[in-house]
Amino acid sequence: MSRPSEIRIVEVGPRDGLQNEAGLVPLAAKVALIDALGAAGLRVIESGSFVSPKWVPQMAETAEVLAAIRRYPGVCYPVLVPNEKGLNAALASGVEEVAVFAAASEAFSRKNINCSIAESLDRFRPVMAGAKAAGVAVRGYVSCVLGCPYQGDVPLADVVRVSEALTDMGCYEVSLGDTIGVGTADKAAAMAGAVAASIGMARTAVHFHDTYGQALVNVLACLDLGVRVVDSAVAGLGGCPYAKGASGNLATEDLVYMLEGLGIATGVDLDALAAAGRTITTALNRRPASKVAQALAAKAG
Amino acid sequence: MSRPSEIRIVEVGPRDGLQNEAGLVPLAAKVALIDALGAAGLRVIESGSFVSPKWVPQMAETAEVLAAIRRYPGVCYPVLVPNEKGLNAALASGVEEVAVFAAASEAFSRKNINCSIAESLDRFRPVMAGAKAAGVAVRGYVSCVLGCPYQGDVPLADVVRVSEALTDMGCYEVSLGDTIGVGTADKAAAMAGAVAASIGMARTAVHFHDTYGQALVNVLACLDLGVRVVDSAVAGLGGCPYAKGASGNLATEDLVYMLEGLGIATGVDLDALAAAGRTITTALNRRPASKVAQALAAKAG
Repeated sequence: MSRPSEIRIVEVGPRDGLQNEAGLVPLAAKVALIDALGAAGLRVIESGSFVSPKWVPQMAETAEVLAAIRRYPGVCYPVLVPNEKGLNAALASGVEEVAVFAAASEAFSRKNINCSIAESLDRFRPVMAGAKAAGVAVRGYVSCVLGCPYQGDVPLADVVRVSEALTDMGCYEVSLGDTIGVGTADKAAAMAGAVAASIGMARTAVHFHDTYGQALVNVLACLDLGVRVVDSAVAGLGGCPYAKGASGNLATEDLVYMLEGLGIATGVDLDALAAAGRTITTALNRRPASKVAQALAAKAG
Repeated sequence: MSRPSEIRIVEVGPRDGLQNEAGLVPLAAKVALIDALGAAGLRVIESGSFVSPKWVPQMAETAEVLAAIRRYPGVCYPVLVPNEKGLNAALASGVEEVAVFAAASEAFSRKNINCSIAESLDRFRPVMAGAKAAGVAVRGYVSCVLGCPYQGDVPLADVVRVSEALTDMGCYEVSLGDTIGVGTADKAAAMAGAVAASIGMARTAVHFHDTYGQALVNVLACLDLGVRVVDSAVAGLGGCPYAKGASGNLATEDLVYMLEGLGIATGVDLDALAAAGRTITTALNRRPASKVAQALAAKAG
């Protein structure tokens, strides 16, 4: 077992979570969420994306969000950028890190961003160059690493190939996303292990959706392999665009509870984190998907 | 890794699940649930308990339930009995297996069944003798194996001692229950490992509640140790009497999904199982806590 003693949590609730919400979230609620996450002790908070508001209306106000949030010292507030135009808008907002987004599934790439995987990677070249010139770090996402809503199985070789392409282009880290949450522990570990064998464990992050309740198990399987970076979303925000009504991202509260139980200090105040999740889910008119948040609320009576 | 290739699932929804429900469940709904679970392929279905209806009103009709269910060949329908009176009622209903219930926590034993652990074990002696005479197998439950709502920490030695006492008395298996769902993977594995080292792996079963979202992770940690028997409840029925509104038992659907993904055949029809869970939770006026059930329903539109 090579489980690391420290884990970096990348909180993706304000971006990957909220972008999938049906109703528009007010600017003030987004800012309050990000501020509460920073106050709770999270060190990386993905805070929005500079994509076309036509495609992702929830993220239209990302510049305003970035201008309004309280910046806690030592906290990183990355944003997603799909292309050079998005990068320029992000740079104008003074971001210190951006993320680009590719798919391991050819069918998903065509349906989701209307181009082949190769074309999507080409589109990132000017983004990588511009980010490098500006001294801004770039993280890469790979989606559909354990299955695709359109093509079904996704060959492991494709996941490795896209991950390599992203690191070759200059991404300091690749986040491996089980977009539809179909993976189970052994498959998740085999996938992360194959990628880490190629790009290095230090560059390998995991990003599980909890559609079938497997996210936390898959995380532990990957930690036991040596993975050190885990994405999650407060209150399990997000849902699944391919199965309306299904669960969203792994809940950060449940991840933090597990890590602390394993003796891995997170620096996160779990009560403050759960309170942040309850505030945003109340605004969204539902309960947090985090069981820790539900239990803490129940105990508080 | 000594993960077994076959796992026995003990479905406890009709007993441990329903006994914690607030509203009374009609007899017909209980019978329909048990029949649906048998039809879905579950092989062990705990179907009720012969306890005082004053303490557990949901279980008052267990004799009627047992008389009405359809008995699938090869399926075992055990019931819980707290004492000799309960055993005699169970025997009169023609059961082939019963279960007795002790706590690893002295404080919990006194609060929950109003006697010390030693007294509760003494109370089981005539039950064991009567069951043996009738040729009926006895399973033992140990509660609070990873924490107690009254005393907090529970020494591992106490869990081992009570498990030994139950097997010494003749229980063929001991189910280790994290009653308040506070355990995390390493602690769960250490606990199950300590018990298995004493009573044998073949006699060691695990029973996790999902209060803090850790149940499935804890199961996998125990499977990787060699544990072969896992308790769960369809739709995650149950709740937590010590934190009203918190999650209940590990959902059988999510367990089956994981096991099949790990290549461990369960013989369970997941769609039929999820449908059984949706039927009973609709009767209870809420959604199944199983994420698999939610995802399958979402995909079905």
